[in-house]
Amino acid sequence: MFLCRIRTDAGVVPAVRIDDETLLDLTPVAGAAGDDLVALAATPGLADAAASLEASGVRIPVASARFEVPVARPQKIVCVALNYVAHAEEGAQAVPAEPVIFFKPPSSLLPHGETVRCPARSERLDFEVELAVVIGTRARDVAVDDWRDVVAGYTVLNDMTARDLQLVAIEKNQPWDHSKGFDTFAPCGPYLVTADEIADPGDLDLSLTTDGVLRQSSNTRHMVFGVPELISVISAGITLEPGDIIATGTPSGIGRVDDGGTMVATVEGVGSLVNPVAYDRAAVPA
Amino acid sequence: MFLCRIRTDAGVVPAVRIDDETLLDLTPVAGAAGDDLVALAATPGLADAAASLEASGVRIPVASARFEVPVARPQKIVCVALNYVAHAEEGAQAVPAEPVIFFKPPSSLLPHGETVRCPARSERLDFEVELAVVIGTRARDVAVDDWRDVVAGYTVLNDMTARDLQLVAIEKNQPWDHSKGFDTFAPCGPYLVTADEIADPGDLDLSLTTDGVLRQSSNTRHMVFGVPELISVISAGITLEPGDIIATGTPSGIGRVDDGGTMVATVEGVGSLVNPVAYDRAAVPA
Repeated sequence: MFLCRIRTDAGVVPAVRIDDETLLDLTPVAGAAGDDLVALAATPGLADAAASLEASGVRIPVASARFEVPVARPQKIVCVALNYVAHAEEGAQAVPAEPVIFFKPPSSLLPHGETVRCPARSERLDFEVELAVVIGTRARDVAVDDWRDVVAGYTVLNDMTARDLQLVAIEKNQPWDHSKGFDTFAPCGPYLVTADEIADPGDLDLSLTTDGVLRQSSNTRHMVFGVPELISVISAGITLEPGDIIATGTPSGIGRVDDGGTMVATVEGVGSLVNPVAYDRAAVPA
Repeated sequence: MFLCRIRTDAGVVPAVRIDDETLLDLTPVAGAAGDDLVALAATPGLADAAASLEASGVRIPVASARFEVPVARPQKIVCVALNYVAHAEEGAQAVPAEPVIFFKPPSSLLPHGETVRCPARSERLDFEVELAVVIGTRARDVAVDDWRDVVAGYTVLNDMTARDLQLVAIEKNQPWDHSKGFDTFAPCGPYLVTADEIADPGDLDLSLTTDGVLRQSSNTRHMVFGVPELISVISAGITLEPGDIIATGTPSGIGRVDDGGTMVATVEGVGSLVNPVAYDRAAVPA
């Protein structure tokens, strides 16, 4: 199932995509899960309940839907750096011997369709398409073979980066976090795609276009560390919580997105995340 | 007021310290704030309500109290690196020209009195005493002069670091986050000290002892960037949320804490945060 959170005049509702043009409001069958998609995905019989709604339920056209981030408030967003060989090489950095992680704050999340804003201190916004894993269960020290037990599903995350600020940090051998932690720097969605939909997260095409021009194109099989290894290594000493997001790294082709441009970040079978970009600081809401 | 969250047989209750030995259960006057100390601190008339409880209220001895982290679930913990000149110098790093930040995940928080655990991949746990600011109000782009408007209060945070892993990351010019992000690596508390108690967060002694031996001793006046500047710079492009924590950096004297040792991290007027340390991996709960 392709689950999502949609802002309506009555508030945020949970919904499911039933075809390319149509969402179905799941409120009548969501029960206590409400618009918590991780809880909803774990609800027994959800697919049947959704099917029973198809005749009479409230339909929402995808084209006009106002999406919210599929995970409303993750406790943490764990990002993996340098996890594609060609990307590490394009940054003149060594391919890591074990996963390199950093954190983005939940305040950086941005829904599908909303605008990425350039902070005043930067002049260069870069895109980075990534497959994101959404955690379904509180877990620690997960064995590699048990990785599926903790995955609720998948989504797309665009690891926006103020590259000028990051390069200064790298030059000074200081943490990168600031350059990747601003508001709107974690576009995420549009869907939480339940784990059963993805046979192998290690064989998915992913790509990013700006204004229709292909900028990144690869496949998750080129990850240095696949999803099972990432979950095992990250959870070794760090408790994963339901709704936590692991952004699995970006392939090569990273680059600048210009003012007024539109990014489309796509992961095969997971969805296409669309976000315009604005460098116009005057337009930033207070 | 020195507010805290105490675990009792009936659950977690809000409390206030009324003298060095005694806490008073604030449940009868907490109302909708419950054990959310940031909301409680903003409750009008709280001091009077607490005083009215003194005759009849439930008292809890400090010595036997089981403390919880004063902020139950911050959205983010923003840490400031290299914010004392002598500390930057002891690490052979440049004094930064502007604040250098990184993030710790909320899953790393640990209450006063609980044990810091060494993750399997490290052999060296280091302490770092820090004054922590707790945010009271959703805010962005805060002017330096308006910093007091967004502060709910202060607490103590010990920025535990797997120094061996951090040094490897620095050697490779990679993010430090993993070395500082493990479970139990953010001891925090014991109190949320309301902002009115601290006339100037820029003139507080802070120190750390291990097993009674003084290891760190400085004053917040030696910060490179004080609390007003930190709040202004961090909130420039990053929304601060109620309960967010800003850990303002550690002075010089950082070092290893041994297996079985006990750390006491003290900030003048804010409190003493006590945590034992265990390298015994077999004792780590599943």
